[in-house]
Amino acid sequence: MIENIEAYTQQVARQARAAAYELALVTGQQKNDWLLHSAGRIREDAAALMQENAKDIERAPEFGLTPAATDRLRLTEDRIEGMARGLEEVAALPDPIGEVIDSSVRPNGLVVTRVRNPLGVVFFIYESRPNVTADAAALCVKSSNAVILRGGKEAFHSNIALYRLLAGTLEEVGLPPHAVQLVETTDRAAVGHFLRERENIDVTIPRGGKSLIERVVSEATMPVIKHFDGVCHVYVDRAADLQMARSILLNSKCQRTGVCNAAESLLVHADVAEAFLKDAGAELVAAGVEIRGDERTRQYVAEAKPATEDDYRTEYLGMTISAKVVDNLDEAIAHINRYGSHHTDAIITSDLPAATRFSTAVDSAAVMVNASTRFNDGGQLGLGAEIGISTDKFHARGPCGLRELTCYKYIVQGSGQIRE
Amino acid sequence: MIENIEAYTQQVARQARAAAYELALVTGQQKNDWLLHSAGRIREDAAALMQENAKDIERAPEFGLTPAATDRLRLTEDRIEGMARGLEEVAALPDPIGEVIDSSVRPNGLVVTRVRNPLGVVFFIYESRPNVTADAAALCVKSSNAVILRGGKEAFHSNIALYRLLAGTLEEVGLPPHAVQLVETTDRAAVGHFLRERENIDVTIPRGGKSLIERVVSEATMPVIKHFDGVCHVYVDRAADLQMARSILLNSKCQRTGVCNAAESLLVHADVAEAFLKDAGAELVAAGVEIRGDERTRQYVAEAKPATEDDYRTEYLGMTISAKVVDNLDEAIAHINRYGSHHTDAIITSDLPAATRFSTAVDSAAVMVNASTRFNDGGQLGLGAEIGISTDKFHARGPCGLRELTCYKYIVQGSGQIRE
Repeated sequence: MIENIEAYTQQVARQARAAAYELALVTGQQKNDWLLHSAGRIREDAAALMQENAKDIERAPEFGLTPAATDRLRLTEDRIEGMARGLEEVAALPDPIGEVIDSSVRPNGLVVTRVRNPLGVVFFIYESRPNVTADAAALCVKSSNAVILRGGKEAFHSNIALYRLLAGTLEEVGLPPHAVQLVETTDRAAVGHFLRERENIDVTIPRGGKSLIERVVSEATMPVIKHFDGVCHVYVDRAADLQMARSILLNSKCQRTGVCNAAESLLVHADVAEAFLKDAGAELVAAGVEIRGDERTRQYVAEAKPATEDDYRTEYLGMTISAKVVDNLDEAIAHINRYGSHHTDAIITSDLPAATRFSTAVDSAAVMVNASTRFNDGGQLGLGAEIGISTDKFHARGPCGLRELTCYKYIVQGSGQIRE
Repeated sequence: MIENIEAYTQQVARQARAAAYELALVTGQQKNDWLLHSAGRIREDAAALMQENAKDIERAPEFGLTPAATDRLRLTEDRIEGMARGLEEVAALPDPIGEVIDSSVRPNGLVVTRVRNPLGVVFFIYESRPNVTADAAALCVKSSNAVILRGGKEAFHSNIALYRLLAGTLEEVGLPPHAVQLVETTDRAAVGHFLRERENIDVTIPRGGKSLIERVVSEATMPVIKHFDGVCHVYVDRAADLQMARSILLNSKCQRTGVCNAAESLLVHADVAEAFLKDAGAELVAAGVEIRGDERTRQYVAEAKPATEDDYRTEYLGMTISAKVVDNLDEAIAHINRYGSHHTDAIITSDLPAATRFSTAVDSAAVMVNASTRFNDGGQLGLGAEIGISTDKFHARGPCGLRELTCYKYIVQGSGQIRE
């Protein structure tokens, strides 16, 4: 039991800052040793991890977890193996730290380089699945950041067990033990105290429901990497291959509905509205999707219900889609910039100028041309692993992997130059 | 006279957002045309600009401006020519927008590119010199951002005259007229309203005194690019060329004292303290610098006064320097990370491992090896021009030029790919 929450959070934050200064000087080999040793330890300790996890599973009904949420919480042998393999995959990624991003020689002989280095201390807040504990610790330490992990109360025992294992391995390979810390209380006040620690925390990354993100954004005194929601569009242009458009629409909407890169809204050019909506509408309806459309959509899809203004701003996270017929490309672009959430938007077209205009003008983290919105994901885009997705434009946009956990500094090498 | 400040700021912010969407689609030629036409117009209208400027000069005593500050406010023919040339220099810089930062082809054939694009809307708050109006507008529009300019009350008439000229030229070349807006009131409440416009403003850049920066940081609801102060160090290592060290120290401290990249603190390795401080101390004293040192410094420099803990955190912006003898490199690094402001810190050494360790471990925007701290400047480091300097680690660090006014988006090109 922690008696003074504020003193505790200050201590944790100060320890993280001190560890971050040490981490600036460690080698890639040390970081990889930690990842590989930890993977081995996770496999060895699988039974003990499942034992701790059982305590969380037992308490799940107390927290009102649905059977699906309880299942996501459960650590099985397969999932533990997956966690271990995740650490090994991060070990195999190139070390982002020390990369010379660019360099130039000034006329006076100064050699100016921008060198990639860690952000410092990451405060990571997440809910539910315990494997995120290992993933987040791996990405932060691989990018030479210290991390303060704040998991959900539902996974408290699983997270503590994992954390002890990961922190113990840090000391064995000579890394600072406070490189990874887990907040050992479920008191909500602790989060508020950490969000005021701007001297010792460089960035906060919240991952979870919208109310969590909103609380973090309103209380944080340091930068935040986040997305609120994903109101993602599929726009079927006049020059679309309609069969391709149907396949991409179905995939974007239905392949997995509870995720931020699933489509929530369909826009169709008036010239192809009838031809497209008759078939695509029937397919969506057959798949069990409820369509909420404007008047023109409802002309072609009898089953569609009327859409309200609110529908166009809604992230359904389920089997519903809003739909609207637009008169031209620019109306689609304006609609997306106005109603969307700057997350992921797709155009289906064979018209190169239309694709270029859409890609340039749509103000979103990712624009898909003739591909499903579901590809906006760190793994799918080749980042190796991701700690979150950002819909902001500052620092990091879209999926955030190792590179997005770094910054740079200028290193200027001279031979006695002074300024005239 | 603006009657409803809040309605006015909302309108300005909304107009900026609409202009930003249009700017996403303009060509580099249009932007350069605007810069070159504006340069010509500034030269043609020099007399009218000086007439408006005279009104500000006349009111300068009302605002309590010192003779030096009044002089900085004054527009002369030379300064107007300098402003025009500044716009031409920005026109000559490469267009940052549309650059493919990196790209890859995924195994499923998706072509993933990260393309540089504008941040959107910049709110720029500055004090005193009217030439900053033209500089900031030029950098923002060249990077396809809309800008809301909020100048100081001392330069109100000069800024309005310049702004009318720049905005007028926008329309002539077909750019959105609200790409550049100037806040046409000196009411301080307007700043507060803009700082809450996070839907329509993507970044705020304050440039001025520490109290302005602090107000902006505490009230802003969007990201801020800023630095509070520059407590910059010169560390003279055991392996330093002592003559070079004296020259760099004098330059860093005295070449210009009122600027953020001037040295404010001297650290000397104990092994060379006597040899270095006897000569360097005498040189600083002869140049009129007051030294505030620890006990060991005062052994070698009779004129040095005792330093307090506070001295090591102080940005003097004048002819004073704090000094301390340290036992080794790591003590110097720890001192800088603890007392410094993460701005610019220099090491003087011929020892390569020492230089590498210092560069890696010092957590500052710029680290100078055998060069003056005064080189941390956009022009000196080759950025072409700068809108400010950042001591933060998020998004932009060090001098901020055109590139730092941009972000990126993922553009993913497919041929019908869907996710399995």
